[in-house]
Amino acid sequence: MNAEIIAIGSELLTPLRTDTNSLFLTEQLNRIGVDVVFKTVVGDEKTRLTATVSLALQRSEIILTIGGLGPTGDDLTRECVAAALGRPLRRDEALVGPMEARFRARGLRMPEINLRQTMVIEGATVLPNRNGTAPGLWIEEQGKIIILLPGPPRELCPLFEHGCLPRLRERVPPTVIRTRELRLTGLTESATEERIAPLYTRYKNPVTTILATLGEIQIHLKSFGKDEAEAQAPLDELSPQLEKVLGKHVFSTRSESMEEVAGNCLLRNKATVAVAESCTGGLLAQRLTSVSGSSAYFLGGVVCYSNAVKMDWLDVPAEVLGTHGAVSAAVAQALAEGIRQRAKSTFGMGITGIAGPTGGTSEKPVGLVYLALAGGGQTQVHERRYPGERKAIRWQATQSALDILRRVLMEEER
Amino acid sequence: MNAEIIAIGSELLTPLRTDTNSLFLTEQLNRIGVDVVFKTVVGDEKTRLTATVSLALQRSEIILTIGGLGPTGDDLTRECVAAALGRPLRRDEALVGPMEARFRARGLRMPEINLRQTMVIEGATVLPNRNGTAPGLWIEEQGKIIILLPGPPRELCPLFEHGCLPRLRERVPPTVIRTRELRLTGLTESATEERIAPLYTRYKNPVTTILATLGEIQIHLKSFGKDEAEAQAPLDELSPQLEKVLGKHVFSTRSESMEEVAGNCLLRNKATVAVAESCTGGLLAQRLTSVSGSSAYFLGGVVCYSNAVKMDWLDVPAEVLGTHGAVSAAVAQALAEGIRQRAKSTFGMGITGIAGPTGGTSEKPVGLVYLALAGGGQTQVHERRYPGERKAIRWQATQSALDILRRVLMEEER
Repeated sequence: MNAEIIAIGSELLTPLRTDTNSLFLTEQLNRIGVDVVFKTVVGDEKTRLTATVSLALQRSEIILTIGGLGPTGDDLTRECVAAALGRPLRRDEALVGPMEARFRARGLRMPEINLRQTMVIEGATVLPNRNGTAPGLWIEEQGKIIILLPGPPRELCPLFEHGCLPRLRERVPPTVIRTRELRLTGLTESATEERIAPLYTRYKNPVTTILATLGEIQIHLKSFGKDEAEAQAPLDELSPQLEKVLGKHVFSTRSESMEEVAGNCLLRNKATVAVAESCTGGLLAQRLTSVSGSSAYFLGGVVCYSNAVKMDWLDVPAEVLGTHGAVSAAVAQALAEGIRQRAKSTFGMGITGIAGPTGGTSEKPVGLVYLALAGGGQTQVHERRYPGERKAIRWQATQSALDILRRVLMEEER
Repeated sequence: MNAEIIAIGSELLTPLRTDTNSLFLTEQLNRIGVDVVFKTVVGDEKTRLTATVSLALQRSEIILTIGGLGPTGDDLTRECVAAALGRPLRRDEALVGPMEARFRARGLRMPEINLRQTMVIEGATVLPNRNGTAPGLWIEEQGKIIILLPGPPRELCPLFEHGCLPRLRERVPPTVIRTRELRLTGLTESATEERIAPLYTRYKNPVTTILATLGEIQIHLKSFGKDEAEAQAPLDELSPQLEKVLGKHVFSTRSESMEEVAGNCLLRNKATVAVAESCTGGLLAQRLTSVSGSSAYFLGGVVCYSNAVKMDWLDVPAEVLGTHGAVSAAVAQALAEGIRQRAKSTFGMGITGIAGPTGGTSEKPVGLVYLALAGGGQTQVHERRYPGERKAIRWQATQSALDILRRVLMEEER
């Protein structure tokens, strides 16, 4: 079966916003064997939106609309889908009570306009939204399926997974699709391609797609079959060949983030870490602690922008700062050793560098970062030069820091 | 005039890639007064692509296609646009020589398939592409303009700016567009709507769009006029009215992020800040330091997950932790005062809470966060309950923290 996604909202037709919900929906649909054949973005405008839905009803089998279910006057999806289907809208009284209760729980009075969100297209099934006031709607019309989803990802994703996927599975002919994602760091996109192209181009199933993001390459494998075993076999044949030629650069074969992988390595080794960050300003601590359960291995972090903080909180000697400068291998080392000592952790990580856009010199340009890892009786220091802007430099530095930690821990696991 | 953008390529219908070229084109088009009213993504499939172009010719005045101009068999844009227009394709012999020269300059022989890229729709103007082999095409048909652009951004952007914009300017009636964006926090979307709807619905110019993101509402105003003054006047009339009813909730009228606004407030007041974060794990420090120049006011941060770090590094008394628990108003206060003292900063911010998914109890549920700001001879503590998942809770807590700081500083500026 094929599907069409309609993202609704005038803000999606400005230079400011782009639809990303459709990527999530496409992934979920592909998994049950549904192809997405059109994506349309249309504004909060009655005539165009109604015409877009009518057209989709003619050319696609499953139609998913995103957004436009809010309480305000420019939220028109309910009205326009009802018009395209020629069905009336009716208030669903059963929705009013729970909606009022949501507001009460937060100590608020429900504004009158929220009642718009209790309007339901005749014949539609209401899909409860645990994370917001706008319920989703599921409508079937002459063999076609129309699904109305709220726009905020934290509402849309669980609603689709729990409310729509089980229903869709019952209606879509079974094709089993299996995917695997290898993630690696430390190789360029073209170096990765050179290593793996001779292998993956021999296979039509799985389909291989390479995607480069900042400090990370993802290799997506997607295979098809009549049943689980037939879909799984091509993956199990190709994936180990790719892993072999990519070696230690591969940090996950299960779509894990680098911070999850590093965290799991720490857990398995019963090790702990503490971090001292200058140029990354807390991003490394934030990534480590974004993983639930990280309190088991993350002991603490210090963001040490100023020299005073480096000296007073982390015992970086004034002479080291004076002789080498704040951005130096020696200071990175002192930060790593200082935080390790203060936190009494297995490992201490220190980062100092120039994230820009200002502060660079010909000797120490923007993008120069020193990363140090103290632990196991020694401290290793790495010098890196990252391309890009402030945000990109900070991200890549934390990616390297986590990778250095992961590699050391994996070495210890051998 | 209005425009429709058609992004072409099967890879744009996978979960891995999204069209971002349209954001650049939208910005450029908006600047000369052209509105984008539809965006469509369609795959490399002849029937669907031809139908999409035909439809666009019926409903839009300017049609821009992106991609599908490459040399391979799945690059179908030239053929499909020709079919939709009912015009033939002819080889433009003048294009062959320069294309061969491009390859020769790189020491390569031109592959036969590249000759596809010398095919031109009858009556089209060829738009030279300095950064690739695929030229763009410009076609006029019954008052409509159809522009074919190559997909790679480093080819598309200069080709559009130099080849298309000057031509479009001659054909588009001069309209000047001005935009303003108000950002606010502390009100729900519907509460915002209730306050401002009576005002903005009275105006057709500017057009008002409300956009809710996590912990933040954005109000986009877009106004039109024959010249700068005429476009500016409606903005200057409506915006102050909105600002007045929204009051202190508005933190920016210039599209600034909350961290930029808080940082600028600190700068203006010659004040400094240091932060002690438990549940936000470094996110607040990271946001504050993501602003270039933040070293002028951000003195340092501590990520204090464990009670040991709270006591040893920030002098939180053991009795306070024992009596009230780590997630409590008293501990938030002690963190704020502790970090302020340690960093010798004007302000100290302390955050402690339960980000989940585990660790919640009926008394202290997931989402409960205490925020404390020490400074100016007092410490204020706020208790908040945020909805959503770990990441959402952490984000909202840092948004509140920055907002509390901003409000105090703005109060001092009075």
